[in-house]
Amino acid sequence: MIIHLNKNIPDTEIQSLAAATKSTWFRSRKDDIPILVTYSSVKELPEILVDKTISHYITDSDMQLSSRRYRKETREIKIGEIAIGGNNKNTLVITGPCSVESEEQITQSAELCIALGVKVLRAGCYKPRTSPYSFQGMGIDGLKLLDKMRNTYGLKIITEVRDSTHVQEVISYTDIVQIGAKSMYDHGILKACGKAQKPILLKRGFGTTLQEFVQASEFILSAGNEDVILCERGIRTFETKTRFTFDLCGVTWLKQFTNLPLILDPSHAIGYNYGVSDLSRASAAMGIEGLLIETHPNPKVAMSDAAQQLNHEQFTALYASLKKVAEAVDRVLI
Amino acid sequence: MIIHLNKNIPDTEIQSLAAATKSTWFRSRKDDIPILVTYSSVKELPEILVDKTISHYITDSDMQLSSRRYRKETREIKIGEIAIGGNNKNTLVITGPCSVESEEQITQSAELCIALGVKVLRAGCYKPRTSPYSFQGMGIDGLKLLDKMRNTYGLKIITEVRDSTHVQEVISYTDIVQIGAKSMYDHGILKACGKAQKPILLKRGFGTTLQEFVQASEFILSAGNEDVILCERGIRTFETKTRFTFDLCGVTWLKQFTNLPLILDPSHAIGYNYGVSDLSRASAAMGIEGLLIETHPNPKVAMSDAAQQLNHEQFTALYASLKKVAEAVDRVLI
Amino acid sequence: MIIHLNKNIPDTEIQSLAAATKSTWFRSRKDDIPILVTYSSVKELPEILVDKTISHYITDSDMQLSSRRYRKETREIKIGEIAIGGNNKNTLVITGPCSVESEEQITQSAELCIALGVKVLRAGCYKPRTSPYSFQGMGIDGLKLLDKMRNTYGLKIITEVRDSTHVQEVISYTDIVQIGAKSMYDHGILKACGKAQKPILLKRGFGTTLQEFVQASEFILSAGNEDVILCERGIRTFETKTRFTFDLCGVTWLKQFTNLPLILDPSHAIGYNYGVSDLSRASAAMGIEGLLIETHPNPKVAMSDAAQQLNHEQFTALYASLKKVAEAVDRVLI
Amino acid sequence: MIIHLNKNIPDTEIQSLAAATKSTWFRSRKDDIPILVTYSSVKELPEILVDKTISHYITDSDMQLSSRRYRKETREIKIGEIAIGGNNKNTLVITGPCSVESEEQITQSAELCIALGVKVLRAGCYKPRTSPYSFQGMGIDGLKLLDKMRNTYGLKIITEVRDSTHVQEVISYTDIVQIGAKSMYDHGILKACGKAQKPILLKRGFGTTLQEFVQASEFILSAGNEDVILCERGIRTFETKTRFTFDLCGVTWLKQFTNLPLILDPSHAIGYNYGVSDLSRASAAMGIEGLLIETHPNPKVAMSDAAQQLNHEQFTALYASLKKVAEAVDRVLI
Repeated sequence: MIIHLNKNIPDTEIQSLAAATKSTWFRSRKDDIPILVTYSSVKELPEILVDKTISHYITDSDMQLSSRRYRKETREIKIGEIAIGGNNKNTLVITGPCSVESEEQITQSAELCIALGVKVLRAGCYKPRTSPYSFQGMGIDGLKLLDKMRNTYGLKIITEVRDSTHVQEVISYTDIVQIGAKSMYDHGILKACGKAQKPILLKRGFGTTLQEFVQASEFILSAGNEDVILCERGIRTFETKTRFTFDLCGVTWLKQFTNLPLILDPSHAIGYNYGVSDLSRASAAMGIEGLLIETHPNPKVAMSDAAQQLNHEQFTALYASLKKVAEAVDRVLI
Repeated sequence: MIIHLNKNIPDTEIQSLAAATKSTWFRSRKDDIPILVTYSSVKELPEILVDKTISHYITDSDMQLSSRRYRKETREIKIGEIAIGGNNKNTLVITGPCSVESEEQITQSAELCIALGVKVLRAGCYKPRTSPYSFQGMGIDGLKLLDKMRNTYGLKIITEVRDSTHVQEVISYTDIVQIGAKSMYDHGILKACGKAQKPILLKRGFGTTLQEFVQASEFILSAGNEDVILCERGIRTFETKTRFTFDLCGVTWLKQFTNLPLILDPSHAIGYNYGVSDLSRASAAMGIEGLLIETHPNPKVAMSDAAQQLNHEQFTALYASLKKVAEAVDRVLI
Repeated sequence: MIIHLNKNIPDTEIQSLAAATKSTWFRSRKDDIPILVTYSSVKELPEILVDKTISHYITDSDMQLSSRRYRKETREIKIGEIAIGGNNKNTLVITGPCSVESEEQITQSAELCIALGVKVLRAGCYKPRTSPYSFQGMGIDGLKLLDKMRNTYGLKIITEVRDSTHVQEVISYTDIVQIGAKSMYDHGILKACGKAQKPILLKRGFGTTLQEFVQASEFILSAGNEDVILCERGIRTFETKTRFTFDLCGVTWLKQFTNLPLILDPSHAIGYNYGVSDLSRASAAMGIEGLLIETHPNPKVAMSDAAQQLNHEQFTALYASLKKVAEAVDRVLI
Repeated sequence: MIIHLNKNIPDTEIQSLAAATKSTWFRSRKDDIPILVTYSSVKELPEILVDKTISHYITDSDMQLSSRRYRKETREIKIGEIAIGGNNKNTLVITGPCSVESEEQITQSAELCIALGVKVLRAGCYKPRTSPYSFQGMGIDGLKLLDKMRNTYGLKIITEVRDSTHVQEVISYTDIVQIGAKSMYDHGILKACGKAQKPILLKRGFGTTLQEFVQASEFILSAGNEDVILCERGIRTFETKTRFTFDLCGVTWLKQFTNLPLILDPSHAIGYNYGVSDLSRASAAMGIEGLLIETHPNPKVAMSDAAQQLNHEQFTALYASLKKVAEAVDRVLI
């Protein structure tokens, strides 16, 4: 159950109410309302809260703050002057390379964004590789290069946190914090992101059910950060001709039952560039809030994910067709 | 290896050449050319065929006749005056109920098609149910009702064969023979369809790899029926909030590597009607040859698949938006 | 609901009672009792049956005749003088090659059985291959060779039916009819086996849930053949280092909730011979009714499944250790 | 490639050799030999190392230090006076509750161990729950209770690290550090465990391939901790009647190709106590180095994993039969 309390109850009192009802709590950043979240098994307003409650919402699983039973409309999330979700019809395109590799490379990516009107640049600095014997990312030097791109070109930045050891650095340098598929269960990261003052893009683990995915978002939401975006990026199935299986059925479920904006990542789903354009158009036709598409000035020499990145020419062609598809489903590509 | 022989070699000689090279063979219905297919491990033209060969094609797996290495262009398939594949840009919409239930019901479905301009009516007569205690379909009576719809309304018909015991009946009544997901490995059906003079729509088994799926089509193609359409309808994964997982990554692979037209079935993939419209639009945005969408005059009382069928009003709205999406990707909805 | 009727009600009356209650029915071969099976949603004895009923059993899903709610004890099944299930503690070992390839080969396999005391010989004659360009089995000639082994050596035979076109032949030649994983949904086969007078070994489809697997057995059971054995042989998962994933968790579920004997097939599960012995011992330790282990006089030249078959020396060593494991869990290897 | 260098080369020189060859390196704790690990793509000994090398090992994937190509025998690992792997035939049983809940509860568990002769007690203090609204573990207070059990009863302790924020605490309190399935990709944890002076039990992620699982162990091994145990605990598949699918095929692969000892966890695999005993016996029959079985003095009131824990009476019966199975496969239960 989610319970909105009277605004003027002091924090110390809320703390003891939370303890008494075994709840987590936070103050909404938008309107300062104290919000208690009990176990989802609680179906009746606890006696001691009756006098102190503005409104309460019964939920039927541990999908609570993220549920459309709590909030009917999709949450609006602002990244500076950019907005997705809420009443707008924006579909936000994000592009850039898998990893920051050099100033020259990331500058070329930034200039591609500028040339097309793309507003958010993506690139990883801490790569969650499966082998210790491959490139692990540029780390803090990469973050500084991304910061330079922001300052030089006015782009917004999204980059990934891999483990708790550098979560504060990533939060301080980026505009959107990306939690990668392999880190989705990391309580240390989820809690740090719950305290952060920036939007979080949470990627679905490739072995993660929709229920668990949404529950992971609850760790962030219930720690007080109301700006969570969900990202489907492919799940692991028996089919191995493609790297993962893009779960668009799951996307319709998330759209139907959660109040969180959705950004889709077709590049990681397929893992091969021949299919990225068709899957990107399919994604745009789903009427979702955004798209994450990997591009590289020269994919052949990319230090990670070489097979799946589009070159700039391919992306330019794709971008033109995405605009048409978005319009066909009554949305605006930004 | 696929080997095109000289047209004037008599069948008896071809038969012994096939035996000598452990090949299967058939005469192409379009131009009467005898075609031999050896094991895919054969990489050099067998000595005894050198003088008799027009052209030959080396393949690298048991995906042979279906491969783009053999034929670069997507096959054109005609269903009466309707054509998909080849040079045209058609995306064929097929609709109708899961099962024929009564004359009244199937007539309403036929009239929906007529009202919107849909040219192909689908409905099952032999249902491959998982339990013996549920509705198994109307059988031959259903086939006769579909025949009546063809005659009355000029619609083309697609219906499913469930097992070898009624394959000839289905072939004789339908315009396109549908092989269901659960029958995809049935050699009896595959061979009968290989001899049939009608296009075959082969559905992917929900536990079937892309490689096996394409290999199943080779049973039909190598028996002489060159008109095979592949249909993705969802695979089984760990995610159970939706009935299956729609494998659009797999669709891009099929599009890239096979020469067979593709028709997608979002209804069975998700299994719930809330997601069918978004997934249909996503499918259309993939630039494929067709769509199979389940509709029912009154889904609540449907005798099978009640949860996933759209009502006629929902489908009418969807159809209008599908036209726009098809146009956005430079295709024509028919 | 399962309803046992009075024995002396004539078949014509039962037929109309079945029609009136939308039930399937058969007479138990053991005691001639007429048994009606309604939809599982029926929870109260239909009015018109009240006077005619000996006993009835409420079930909670379409797992009815196979359920321990209907029969607490595991069914006893006899293959000639051999018995599994019921009160005995037998674990039946079945071995032999993937395919009958020649008289010499199958004779060697039969002699291995005789040397060790193995009572049932397995070998396929109709192979459900995924590609039309590979060996499809010896067909009727293979069946005749198996028949010869039975007559010469006194072995029992188990062989597989692939599709409905040859189901009657297989039934007439074999002692146990094996329905293969790819044919598990084939209504034509299931119904023919329901009429057969021989025990049926039903293999689980590799993409099949436990619920569907058990429901497939209901097609056979409800058609009157009460002798069904279930066989787990590996399911398809994301892990591809091994051919399939052996679902022993599923086996414990089947053991807990169904009344059907269980025979396990580790050879097909792993697909590589290095793991077959360990998995066979693990299977025997589960306390199940039998084991199906592929062996070949010379695996290197096997025409199918070459990688997974044990040679005769390996099997002889395994057989000795299986005896010890069976004893450790209080069972008798036969 | 793995390269053993001359022992007397100073660390500073090794550091520059490692940099020059893009290798990771460590000194073996057992014999002080400096070991370099290059990318697995390196197939010839780098020129600059030729004079300084004792021996080198070519590997064919990023499974290097864990491979039987590097070390033929299974590593021996000591937990105090207990040893598994190497030349001994020990199968180590570990038991205890999912979570430490109270001193009374964990004392009862410790006493069960003492009564039966079990040497290692398991229990979690930081639970990686999927929902923020459920019990998260006792944290440091739990670790202190485990420490008390060690001191009071002379038991060894294994407990789990959930995220990097408390990895040092866990390392300092436990005898074996358990890395949970959800943390398997956490570089922060893997690196900290690579520096730790204690054996590490690494659980396979439920969506993790065998290749990735083994590669995760390489992060620990290549950071200098040579004592890694692998633990299979079930993977996620389409089958949902059981919580996970126990991958014993995968276990045979790990046994065949890696040099790391194996401990199996049937409790988490199935998730229901009815199947735990059979699966434990199956595991013991595989001839592996150990077993992790969850027990609780009173499972009905357990604060986590209530459904899968055995009570003490059930475990006592199981333990007796495990001894027999271990003997049947020529191993000793300790």
